[in-house]
Amino acid sequence: MTDAATNMRLKLPAICIILEVILIILFGALVQYDDETDARKWHELTKNHSDYENDFYYRYPSFQDVHVMIFIGFGFLMTFLQRYGFSSVGFNFLIAAFALQWATLMQGFFHGMHGGKIHIGVESMINADFCTGAVLISFGAVLGKTSPVQLLVMALFEVVLFAVNEFILLSALGARDAGGSMTIHTFGAYFGLTVTRVLYRPNLSKSKHRNSSVYHSDLFAMIGTIYLWMFWPSFNSAITAHGDDQHRTAMNTYYSLAACTLATYGLSALTAHDGKLDMVHIQNAALAGGVAAGTAGEMMLTPFGSMIVGFLAGTVSVLGFKYLSPILEEKLKVQDTCGVHNLHGMPGVLGAIVGAVTAAVATKDVYGDGMADVFPDVASGDIEASFQGVRQAISLAVTLGIALLGGLIVGFILKLPIYGAPPDNICFEDNIYWEVPEEEESHESQLTAVMTEEAEKLNS
Amino acid sequence: MTDAATNMRLKLPAICIILEVILIILFGALVQYDDETDARKWHELTKNHSDYENDFYYRYPSFQDVHVMIFIGFGFLMTFLQRYGFSSVGFNFLIAAFALQWATLMQGFFHGMHGGKIHIGVESMINADFCTGAVLISFGAVLGKTSPVQLLVMALFEVVLFAVNEFILLSALGARDAGGSMTIHTFGAYFGLTVTRVLYRPNLSKSKHRNSSVYHSDLFAMIGTIYLWMFWPSFNSAITAHGDDQHRTAMNTYYSLAACTLATYGLSALTAHDGKLDMVHIQNAALAGGVAAGTAGEMMLTPFGSMIVGFLAGTVSVLGFKYLSPILEEKLKVQDTCGVHNLHGMPGVLGAIVGAVTAAVATKDVYGDGMADVFPDVASGDIEASFQGVRQAISLAVTLGIALLGGLIVGFILKLPIYGAPPDNICFEDNIYWEVPEEEESHESQLTAVMTEEAEKLNS
Amino acid sequence: MTDAATNMRLKLPAICIILEVILIILFGALVQYDDETDARKWHELTKNHSDYENDFYYRYPSFQDVHVMIFIGFGFLMTFLQRYGFSSVGFNFLIAAFALQWATLMQGFFHGMHGGKIHIGVESMINADFCTGAVLISFGAVLGKTSPVQLLVMALFEVVLFAVNEFILLSALGARDAGGSMTIHTFGAYFGLTVTRVLYRPNLSKSKHRNSSVYHSDLFAMIGTIYLWMFWPSFNSAITAHGDDQHRTAMNTYYSLAACTLATYGLSALTAHDGKLDMVHIQNAALAGGVAAGTAGEMMLTPFGSMIVGFLAGTVSVLGFKYLSPILEEKLKVQDTCGVHNLHGMPGVLGAIVGAVTAAVATKDVYGDGMADVFPDVASGDIEASFQGVRQAISLAVTLGIALLGGLIVGFILKLPIYGAPPDNICFEDNIYWEVPEEEESHESQLTAVMTEEAEKLNS
Repeated sequence: MTDAATNMRLKLPAICIILEVILIILFGALVQYDDETDARKWHELTKNHSDYENDFYYRYPSFQDVHVMIFIGFGFLMTFLQRYGFSSVGFNFLIAAFALQWATLMQGFFHGMHGGKIHIGVESMINADFCTGAVLISFGAVLGKTSPVQLLVMALFEVVLFAVNEFILLSALGARDAGGSMTIHTFGAYFGLTVTRVLYRPNLSKSKHRNSSVYHSDLFAMIGTIYLWMFWPSFNSAITAHGDDQHRTAMNTYYSLAACTLATYGLSALTAHDGKLDMVHIQNAALAGGVAAGTAGEMMLTPFGSMIVGFLAGTVSVLGFKYLSPILEEKLKVQDTCGVHNLHGMPGVLGAIVGAVTAAVATKDVYGDGMADVFPDVASGDIEASFQGVRQAISLAVTLGIALLGGLIVGFILKLPIYGAPPDNICFEDNIYWEVPEEEESHESQLTAVMTEEAEKLNS
Repeated sequence: MTDAATNMRLKLPAICIILEVILIILFGALVQYDDETDARKWHELTKNHSDYENDFYYRYPSFQDVHVMIFIGFGFLMTFLQRYGFSSVGFNFLIAAFALQWATLMQGFFHGMHGGKIHIGVESMINADFCTGAVLISFGAVLGKTSPVQLLVMALFEVVLFAVNEFILLSALGARDAGGSMTIHTFGAYFGLTVTRVLYRPNLSKSKHRNSSVYHSDLFAMIGTIYLWMFWPSFNSAITAHGDDQHRTAMNTYYSLAACTLATYGLSALTAHDGKLDMVHIQNAALAGGVAAGTAGEMMLTPFGSMIVGFLAGTVSVLGFKYLSPILEEKLKVQDTCGVHNLHGMPGVLGAIVGAVTAAVATKDVYGDGMADVFPDVASGDIEASFQGVRQAISLAVTLGIALLGGLIVGFILKLPIYGAPPDNICFEDNIYWEVPEEEESHESQLTAVMTEEAEKLNS
Repeated sequence: MTDAATNMRLKLPAICIILEVILIILFGALVQYDDETDARKWHELTKNHSDYENDFYYRYPSFQDVHVMIFIGFGFLMTFLQRYGFSSVGFNFLIAAFALQWATLMQGFFHGMHGGKIHIGVESMINADFCTGAVLISFGAVLGKTSPVQLLVMALFEVVLFAVNEFILLSALGARDAGGSMTIHTFGAYFGLTVTRVLYRPNLSKSKHRNSSVYHSDLFAMIGTIYLWMFWPSFNSAITAHGDDQHRTAMNTYYSLAACTLATYGLSALTAHDGKLDMVHIQNAALAGGVAAGTAGEMMLTPFGSMIVGFLAGTVSVLGFKYLSPILEEKLKVQDTCGVHNLHGMPGVLGAIVGAVTAAVATKDVYGDGMADVFPDVASGDIEASFQGVRQAISLAVTLGIALLGGLIVGFILKLPIYGAPPDNICFEDNIYWEVPEEEESHESQLTAVMTEEAEKLNS
């Protein structure tokens, strides 16, 4: 099932090794331990501090949860396809391992430079994983239709654009987006959707029979779903301020997700003609509550507000899968394999809007001295809360702009016929890039043998 | 395979959306951030405290482990059935997402009220997950024989009864039960067993061929088992006092489980006529050591004591699966799909007894000033240690009473023919409530085609 | 498929129960809570300390990650075989549950004695899990060819040898090996390889058709791989000093693994004749970066250095699978089922060498006051850094010596024909020690029935 065009023998080793060597050289030239990971510097600091004040103890458990979401969560969520499990988990693994190194450099370049060096520690590791998350969302849109080389090239460009967008939002515009409704979800989704639009395959229906699940692949995908669901509170709270902020963000996300799940089950049964639940909805829409709490989660959204947000997100997401996705595919030619528009796109935009509104109504009365953690410019009196809301809204527009424009350009770069992408009739198929073992058991072949024998007996 | 009676098109959306809307309204009216999640209040407190004293850092890692047990652990443990994986993980997900919200309200009503409001934070989140655990244990007893609507109704009532029982035990009687041998395991098991007794199906044997595992479903179930096993130390220690208490409880549970595992393997081989290990025992009985350490785990049980408890729990559990379950089914008409009596019922009672004995022999010499954390009433001199033991024993009796009586009433409520429960011959089957994808691969159908062709050739 | 020789009815219960009873007695006689788990002692200490200084909060999250690696990571990594999933997860579970108890005693005997008693807490729990890791590495070498009784006997001896070797390295020689490149990986691998050499089966090819994966078994194995990969930063940092040391070690390992992954994908495609990725490489070689950062990870290796180490480790590991393993099997008669030589053996040796070099070049300028945490004898002025390097190198030689000699002796003990090992033609097969459920679904049998009927019709 391999021919010269899709043979990775030289292309994949070349890109992997060249990229890694460049990364290593750049790390050697630019990257240093920060004050909390450097032996000398931390011990100078701890003359006034104690070891338990090291940021490691505040953030490492959250980091590990985020790490699980990136590698197990995204990786297994995409194993729902019947013959694409190796690629789903395996390419997820490859591009994430690349993206987190590259993101360390790009994000460090924009907001971690100290005297010409990038300082790194657990917070930069979380940020690198976050950026990787955006790449994996885009991967979901093009899943099954791309070569690993193409995916690495996509990651190469997307990480740069992510860092630029993140810099504009958080540093230039002063927006808040701790859980990345805008920077991660909206950006990753609309970037990926634009890429898949540019890479439109009119004859993809030739691979249609593989673009669906089987019983066990749906169970593997549920591993991904459940891990994403469980650890989303850690995701949204991972880089918020110490103390009440991490605590509150985790709790808001927890209730948003719980409400989202009930909405998802309800809507899934309601929109099915026979009342049967659809695994696609459960695997995806139940997570929309985490996406939609990504911006406002750290704010005083209240559990009540979080649950409303989650309920809306789940509703929008199921309706998107049911009614909008077919339209996007037929009319706009957007072939969105995992439905990232429904899980990350619309809920991300919803989250950005909720964030803008919640910011705009923030008052000193509600936040007290905690205002400085969440809205430092409002706390310092530089701006009104309502203007923080405007900043948030502008940030959404900027994100959509960069994602769509960036996706367009990168889409055309990825369209070059040099990456060994699969032909239209061999999409959603592991066998093209992986050594795939023989059929499960040999029962069928044994049966065939028996049958042939029987038939021969009859013949003679 | 769907007919009007089991069609969920209206019933499931109605109950999901109505319940969620009621929850949202009640949260809006009653629930507030506690001092550690509220921006203003925490910053008032931190004039005297540091961020690392926020309860989040003491308990959130434990919370996440508990969360994994609830959603992955229970969810996948029940995927052992060959055609019920979607429902096992999926209904587990649904009823847990509902129960944790409802439990926040019910538990808050009984022991989290401050000035008419329920204050919530990481500890209430853990408690909500604990209550959810009891509901999922009961789910194990009725697995495969209930509709999702029926399960939500069961959860609705069970959460209330759980909160009442928990209030009586912990607040009224002054019992200790940090890991829930009584409140979670004994209660959840005997409630569920009574429900399944009331819902007895004389013709369940019509679905017998699906009430068993296949090779891969047993492997999926092992994911659940291993996660439950690994994180049980976090479960039992999650809400114990800070410092030595959390530390000791985790360690006691670790050794109890290790000893339990060796007992389980030994007994499983011993009780099989051909010496072969039985996956049902490994998946379940190996966990009984965690259940049985649920009450005494926080006490000075010693690793030695913990291992004895674990060894006994594993032994009792395997023997229960082998000899008691068939009797319960045939004589008492208790159709206990997952054998929760063996994993949660008997080991829960064992744990309660161990807790009573360990409490009764507590001395100031052993506990020192730590007595105030574990037995505050003994430390304050209000009661003798022996009387604490009596309290524990009474608590077990109360728990059994409420579970059995509550299960009886709720069982009859669930027997009403309005929930779309599956008929006797379509139990243990996903297809009745889920869109199930076509057969794995199409090898069989291809083969059928080939065969038909061959046969036709012969015919002509 | 069971005969008297492999029947576990008496052997397995006997060894499980005898071992557990001995463990319980020894724990009763020798083991006590340490200062941080004992109610009285901790409360005496906390007159000067606060609860957040309890080691539980520094190490328990890392412990849980290590625990996941041991039980899920190793357990599922080995499920790649098509008919050995029950045994892979199940025997992993059994021998780990035994080894962690036994290791508590052996390690405590060598470096945890206080007044004739072994004091235990979260650090001893991590160390016990570490020792268990070495046993599971050896299990990987003999996977599919041993009975559970044989594995328990192997664990019994290996834990003792591990504790002796660890004592010589860390206490007698003063070497550093926080993540166990030497004590865990090199030791476990070469011990296991020697055992499998002694147990050489000339007719193993009779089971060759089962010594390979199927599609879903490779996906289950990826669960193991990804968990090991994600949590390796916690593994290497779990017992390093508080503060910068834990933080830095985790980060070094993170970058080592990321670089290793790109090298693995590149080399896997490069060494395949058709450019297709090989799951065996991805499942194993991508982890070599964690192994190779086991010794130097806590040192000031820098992310740059870590990435070079990871890149080399991945490269060596893939080349080992491709070119060295076949030679080892054919020429040296080492039947290494999981290829532990490539994942743990060579990368472990590489890690030891990197550790020796990194130690030798340590300077006060780079480490500052942090030198006391990493190289206490250098910090105190007792030795030069270069001599620390010599200590590390000697430690590698000692480890190899004890592993090879110990493996030889234990191999001959395990060769005794009393353990019920499987015959050559029933290796890699669950059915010999487990009740295995009927075939997945009954589609084939239904089909057979249909076919027979058809054939009969034709016949008549």
